[in-house]
This record gives sequence, structure tokens and C-alpha cells, in this order.
Amino acid sequence: MKTPPAALLFDVFGTLVDFRSSIALDARARFGAGFDGEAFADAWRAEYQPAMQRIRDGNRGYVPLDVLHRENLDRILPRFGKDGLSEAERAEFNLVWHRLTAWPEVPAALRRLRTKFRLAPLSNGNIALMVDMAQHNDFRWDAILGADIARDYKPKPVVYEAACAAFGLPPERCMMVAAHSDDLAGAAKSGLMTAHIARPDEHGPGKGEAAPSVPVDFAARDLAHLAELLLS
Amino acid sequence: MKTPPAALLFDVFGTLVDFRSSIALDARARFGAGFDGEAFADAWRAEYQPAMQRIRDGNRGYVPLDVLHRENLDRILPRFGKDGLSEAERAEFNLVWHRLTAWPEVPAALRRLRTKFRLAPLSNGNIALMVDMAQHNDFRWDAILGADIARDYKPKPVVYEAACAAFGLPPERCMMVAAHSDDLAGAAKSGLMTAHIARPDEHGPGKGEAAPSVPVDFAARDLAHLAELLLS
Repeated sequence: MKTPPAALLFDVFGTLVDFRSSIALDARARFGAGFDGEAFADAWRAEYQPAMQRIRDGNRGYVPLDVLHRENLDRILPRFGKDGLSEAERAEFNLVWHRLTAWPEVPAALRRLRTKFRLAPLSNGNIALMVDMAQHNDFRWDAILGADIARDYKPKPVVYEAACAAFGLPPERCMMVAAHSDDLAGAAKSGLMTAHIARPDEHGPGKGEAAPSVPVDFAARDLAHLAELLLS
Repeated sequence: MKTPPAALLFDVFGTLVDFRSSIALDARARFGAGFDGEAFADAWRAEYQPAMQRIRDGNRGYVPLDVLHRENLDRILPRFGKDGLSEAERAEFNLVWHRLTAWPEVPAALRRLRTKFRLAPLSNGNIALMVDMAQHNDFRWDAILGADIARDYKPKPVVYEAACAAFGLPPERCMMVAAHSDDLAGAAKSGLMTAHIARPDEHGPGKGEAAPSVPVDFAARDLAHLAELLLS
């Protein structure tokens, strides 16, 4: 391989944590066993890209993802007959994104990777969200990088570049790790190394990327496999 | 006490780490046992506030503290007859700020405080510097906040306010911990709670703040004492 990276930068939603199952579980606990939690999770997530796009396009100033998640929640609740939720209930429900649960192999793989590399999330999630999620899953980060420090959203180049600069590293010493080819393509355009993690079931059975659709430096079956590839 | 804080935000240079002894030791190792390492540390640190002041005043765009430290090093080396250092030697020497050693009670006290509070440095040091220093001293932070995320220097209000916002907390749920009254006065003006740590020998024997000169919520003998005050 090329000069090995000094830092690994992680996409989080879908790559490290299973947002769909976590949100579906929470929604069912809240609305009853018959509630279609998966459809609700899919609907909430479907609002994610359009909400960020207005900011990426410069049609809205930067606001943290917590704000977008809350606006998106207000938008979808009526579709599921749940517009009766109070302000306090909505604010509390919105924090479900702070409590997403990691894919099973992730915590141990991160601990292994931390023996050799600097680790940080490079997520569109804001710092407070990432701090809570780290506590929920016992992730140990060296720093929380991503949208909140760049004040813009991936895959805009400034987000990758601000993260490398914060670590004091040139992009070629940083590796972006993600389950999404568009994220890796963005990172590669800014000069970062790239590693793809297969998450074939991210959006439901068979609805996720089993393999990258762009050239990458590493393609791994899961994060434990990436740790094997990088540490052996 | 008032509502207890949810997060503690730490000044670092002088409050958590003994920069003067660390730099003096490194300088003596580099230049010989007869070299006045303490005078060198004092001279380097004396350039710190004026360098930041130009940025606070808007007379220069934000650059990270690593850049200011390097400029200040170039300024003082000739005064100590050391202008023969190469570019590579200067770049390497400048990283001494990344390897400063904690005051003795700090690592254990931080581990105790982390059982109850979110912890982050709120330093004028940049993220890369804080990451290296955390690794050197085994500090475990929830996030790295401070100048680099605000793109300005303490005691400007934006630096305190950006840190609280990053944690998703109102200022009154955050407590600034510092050995410097001007830092605590700045934090209090933005609505944060404040805790003073006595460091009577920060700038040499008897040359440091043994007590705060401004009103604070807590005044502690050292960080272990603050942990007792907050956790009992």
C-alpha cells in the first residue's frame, strides 16, 4: 500500500451505527408493537439529503443536523398520524439520533484500530450528537470532526479538508472510512485515502452497498475486516 | 450550589499541564545542561498573548496556535544564540507544545470527573495540539473544543459560546475550569459557571495565581480538590 494513513475518519450513520433498526425499535416502543417503525425510519432518513442540500447550495446558512432532524420529524409525523406529539415529546424523540446503536463488530474493531491510528468521526452529525453517541456505544475518539467544524455538509470538499487540517495532517495521510460510495468519492477528490465498508442491509434487507461503486484503496466486509487489513 | 453543570471545559496551558517545566526540560536536553531552559520557556510564552491579540483585534485572520508558536520560536531563538537551528529542527522543536506534561494530580482527577461530567478542553491550542497532548497524558476527552472551532482566541466571547453550543448546552450548564482569572472572567461574562484552580508556581516559584482575583463559583487547591468539591 501507499504510505499508511496516520488518521482514520469515519462516516457514522449507516457505516458505524445501524440507524434504521435503532429508530424502528424506538418508534415501536413509543407508538406500539403494530407501528411500522422501519417505514418511519426510512421516511425520516429520506428527508436527510434534501434538508442538507439547501445548505450545501448556499440557500440556507449552516444549522446543525439536530435542527434538520427536528424539522424533518415535524414534517413526517402527520404522515404517520402522530401529529399529536407535544413539543417536549418531539424534542425528546429527536434525540433518538444521539442513541443509535453500533453494528455488532464496531466497538471492538475501533478499539483495535485505535492502537495504531488517530480516530475521529467525520460525520454530518453535529458534535453534541456525536458525543452522546460515543457515550452510548463507548466509542473513544481523539477528536470530533465533521460538519460542525466545517459549518457545511459532506460531500462538500471543505468538510474533508477541515478535518485533515484539524488533525494537522495532509489529506493523503488521512483515510475516509464509509459505507457510501458518494462519500468516498468526495473524500478522494480532496486527496484522502478511502476504505469502503460493506453494509448490504443498511436500508433494509439487501438495500445497502455490498461493494463500492467507485475506486477505493480498501474494500472490507465490515470494520473488523478493515482492522485486519490495516493492522496485519 | 446552582443547578450542577453538565460539562466541564478546561483551560489547558498552566491549568492542566506544566508548560514551563516541560519546555525548560526539552530545551536543556536540546541545548545542554547549562542552558537556561526556564528563561527560554518564559520568553517563548511571553510572545503568546501579543501574537493572539492581533487576531482577536481583527488585524489578522485566524491561524492556529501551532503557527503562532512557530513564529514566536523564530523570534526568540536569536536572543538565545540559537538562530542556527534548521527548518526541520525548528518544526520539530515547535511540537514540544504537543508533549507538555500534566501537573501530577490531573490525569486521575480527570478520570474521576469524567464519571459525572462531559469533559473538553476549551483552550487556545488547536485541535492537533490537543490531540497529541491527550495522547501524551492519556486524557480522555468527549470532544476537543476551543479556539480552532471558534476560529478566534479566548477571552473573546465567541470561543466560550461556540464550545457550549457544540455540546448542545446553554452556557449556565457549562463550567469553565482555569488557573487564570481573566479566562474565568471572560467565561462568566458569557454566562458559564467558573472554577479556579490554584497554580501558584505556574510561571516559576510563587509566580502564578494562588487564588482567583474575580468572583468564581468554586476555588480549588488543585484539580483533585475540585473533583472532591463537585463529586461529594
